[in-house]
Amino acid sequence: MGDHKPDHLLENGSATMLNPLDPEEFRRQGHMVVDFLADYYHNIEKYPVRSQVKPGYLRELLPESAPLKPESIEKILQDVQEEIIPGITNWQSPNFFAYFPSSGSIASFLGEMLCTGFNTVGFSWITSPAATELESIVMDWLGKMIQLPKSFLFSGGGGGVLHGSTCEAILCTVVAVREQKLSVIGRENIGKLVVYCSDQTHSSLQKSVTIAGINPKNLRPIVTTKSSNFQLSPHSLELAIVSDVKAGLIPLYLCCTVGTTSSTAVDPLGALCEIAEQYGIWVHVDAAYAGAACFCPEFRHFLDGVEGANSFSFNAHKWFLTSLECCCLWVKDPAALIKALSTNPEYLRNYFAESEQVVDYKDWQMALSRRFRALKIWLVLRSYGVTGLRDFIRGHVKMAKHFEGLIATDKRFEVVFPRNFALVCFRVSPLVIPRDKDVNEFNRHLLESVNASGDAFMTHAVVGGVYVIRLAVGATLTEYRHIDKAFRLVQEHANVLLCVY
Amino acid sequence: MGDHKPDHLLENGSATMLNPLDPEEFRRQGHMVVDFLADYYHNIEKYPVRSQVKPGYLRELLPESAPLKPESIEKILQDVQEEIIPGITNWQSPNFFAYFPSSGSIASFLGEMLCTGFNTVGFSWITSPAATELESIVMDWLGKMIQLPKSFLFSGGGGGVLHGSTCEAILCTVVAVREQKLSVIGRENIGKLVVYCSDQTHSSLQKSVTIAGINPKNLRPIVTTKSSNFQLSPHSLELAIVSDVKAGLIPLYLCCTVGTTSSTAVDPLGALCEIAEQYGIWVHVDAAYAGAACFCPEFRHFLDGVEGANSFSFNAHKWFLTSLECCCLWVKDPAALIKALSTNPEYLRNYFAESEQVVDYKDWQMALSRRFRALKIWLVLRSYGVTGLRDFIRGHVKMAKHFEGLIATDKRFEVVFPRNFALVCFRVSPLVIPRDKDVNEFNRHLLESVNASGDAFMTHAVVGGVYVIRLAVGATLTEYRHIDKAFRLVQEHANVLLCVY
Repeated sequence: MGDHKPDHLLENGSATMLNPLDPEEFRRQGHMVVDFLADYYHNIEKYPVRSQVKPGYLRELLPESAPLKPESIEKILQDVQEEIIPGITNWQSPNFFAYFPSSGSIASFLGEMLCTGFNTVGFSWITSPAATELESIVMDWLGKMIQLPKSFLFSGGGGGVLHGSTCEAILCTVVAVREQKLSVIGRENIGKLVVYCSDQTHSSLQKSVTIAGINPKNLRPIVTTKSSNFQLSPHSLELAIVSDVKAGLIPLYLCCTVGTTSSTAVDPLGALCEIAEQYGIWVHVDAAYAGAACFCPEFRHFLDGVEGANSFSFNAHKWFLTSLECCCLWVKDPAALIKALSTNPEYLRNYFAESEQVVDYKDWQMALSRRFRALKIWLVLRSYGVTGLRDFIRGHVKMAKHFEGLIATDKRFEVVFPRNFALVCFRVSPLVIPRDKDVNEFNRHLLESVNASGDAFMTHAVVGGVYVIRLAVGATLTEYRHIDKAFRLVQEHANVLLCVY
Repeated sequence: MGDHKPDHLLENGSATMLNPLDPEEFRRQGHMVVDFLADYYHNIEKYPVRSQVKPGYLRELLPESAPLKPESIEKILQDVQEEIIPGITNWQSPNFFAYFPSSGSIASFLGEMLCTGFNTVGFSWITSPAATELESIVMDWLGKMIQLPKSFLFSGGGGGVLHGSTCEAILCTVVAVREQKLSVIGRENIGKLVVYCSDQTHSSLQKSVTIAGINPKNLRPIVTTKSSNFQLSPHSLELAIVSDVKAGLIPLYLCCTVGTTSSTAVDPLGALCEIAEQYGIWVHVDAAYAGAACFCPEFRHFLDGVEGANSFSFNAHKWFLTSLECCCLWVKDPAALIKALSTNPEYLRNYFAESEQVVDYKDWQMALSRRFRALKIWLVLRSYGVTGLRDFIRGHVKMAKHFEGLIATDKRFEVVFPRNFALVCFRVSPLVIPRDKDVNEFNRHLLESVNASGDAFMTHAVVGGVYVIRLAVGATLTEYRHIDKAFRLVQEHANVLLCVY
């Protein structure tokens, strides 16, 4: 076959390009990008945290079409530096306190490198046994670490799976119980199914419920109040259920939250699960953010009652040193997921799948294709250890407490809600804002002023009508000096605004 | 604040650990993993392509719980080598011909590194303007390269988005048109909606339709035949629609395929879209695999008629040098997607979103969280250029043709279906198999024998009752010598089996 021109080699003008996976070129370019990123982390505090570009900035910089000929990595990295980085909001900056931060780490980065390097597609066990088995193992490890009841672990008849997002986790569990229920009551009754949550529940639930074809009118966001710290009230839940049942509707699913997005409120799981059980409702516990804290024994009590739930999820990609995307979902009854989500086309059939000795994760999630996500969790657990991870989270909680202490030193400010984890909700107090001015509007201006400086990035929430500035400690590089700086920054911008108001 | 113990530093016995994103430690460990993977690619042919481990192999090797204390990267990489790699099915091996291969590349790997390194969460424009804008730009670039009608591009009122999988792309478009339709006919009629496809359509459609709450009985997989090369017949489609309409059902969605999984059949888009238009049906064109080929002008005719469709997707993570996960979806009417999928909780509200000057991709997809996927596509397009990508695909097609040629040299084998792209469907001919033996069963044994050798990995399909062995050329490292070796391997195993049969 020696007369074949090696067609896999690319023509680059007169020169011949290497194979796109040539190991030595991989090595050369890989090292360059490692150095590029190490330098980025070194310099990260020099960049504005929230990008300062204007809409459409990049269309003005880039050509209208893809290049015809290959370009060098040197040129591309120069463009990343000059064109892309200015347009990035720097989530890894130590001055990033917005939303809930995404805490990257070296271990997770390396896990992603291995995942991308192997580029396996782990839909069935046989397509990469290690991908499936490591995932099951780390999900059991994590489940034990966070003291989930054994019924959520593989060893107890349940099991865990890595999804991309909470939305996917909720969607899959909603579909699992929807199919279960419809098989009993008849598919024509899909319009009668009701889903419960609080008015603090993350919008992922609303989206999942819409996607699953549940009537949007049958989503019941139950009103919470400041007097109960914006927790979902078991009594209000029961009233809503009873009223729906009377109206001929069929309760299906309840989403409880441990650590709401706006104020990290924690729903009382035990009491809620008891009520749900009476009505045969599937309970999902969404601990997307605060789940990470519950790995520390002193925070574990926030999960008390989870033993009554049907499924539980937390996002390792928020506050667990793991890069996007990584949502850990456990279910007590994997068969419900599998029954709703499994497909068995001939082209995927194989001996191992039919032997029922293995997990085929394609039937535990939405998509067929799936990356080897377990690698990054495994590297994080091993590189930092249980104690290291706990200390990391405790460090952030202490820094948030420190910020609370700073707020207390300046009477113009107030902490609006009790702090449960590493999120502080604060504002300029109504007492210092001129009476004819809107307090919420003032704080909104203050936040925008702080963020426009580029020196820190925080976001807001409105809870019980009160506009609060949210400072969430969670970026990996954050130290006490950044907390102190953030407080001074808020003070300075408040000073200016209070003068002009 | 100097009296604070730096709590973010981890205790490791008596030693103090570095911050988990320490730039110099990042550099050191990053370089190690680059070298580890470069060595993996060097040695990749030494590993069995399909993993040879037994179910449960990894539980026997790993401890029952996560380690308490941090472990070194050196020890972890040793375990990756000794415990994980044996359990991997090596999708990047040049001897991987199964399913549709996942063609990784250096450029895509670097794009993933940058994406993970920045670890931005691009749900709204403001959370990383570059992530949104680069995605819109590369989707327009790709759309132009593949000659999509302007109505699919941002410049023509449509637009593109990067999803994780075809399943997600189909699900989101099904939900978009489902909501559109239900708003007209009333939500109580969800049970009347009908989705059309062929019996060759990928199982992703079935799964998406189930998740979306469409009655599974209303999925119409229309029978295809060998005489029409397993294309979906416009006539059969129309008969099915007419019959459904007569029965009071409501046609909703049609999924056409360009390059089916079993045999790369191509549905006649033009004629199918014409019929769909008459009945107000949303047409999605799933070119998950073969879309990549259509970037070459000589294959573009397979997409003729796509101008009549509402949405189009192909998986860059299959045959476009891009690592998982990366499904490119274009829609003519983004407003339909946004209307069905948008959520606007207070905590995500921002000036730019409300100014309607920007794209907020959270409303174009299922999840809220999203990675900066556009980086890897951008790096692939720039590193290889349009010509490089086309040559890469052409090289694989020529290698598949070469394999066909080899099959033709041995009368015991036959190519079962005409080859459209780089997939060859072949088998041992019934003529040489003893009359009392089952032809399909023989070929199944042959495939299992080949795969058990570890020297190559192919998979199968059953189309029109015929069991075929599928050899899909698509791994980046594959050269002619691997094709030749694969053919000799098949011959050798057939020799042995024909003796014992």
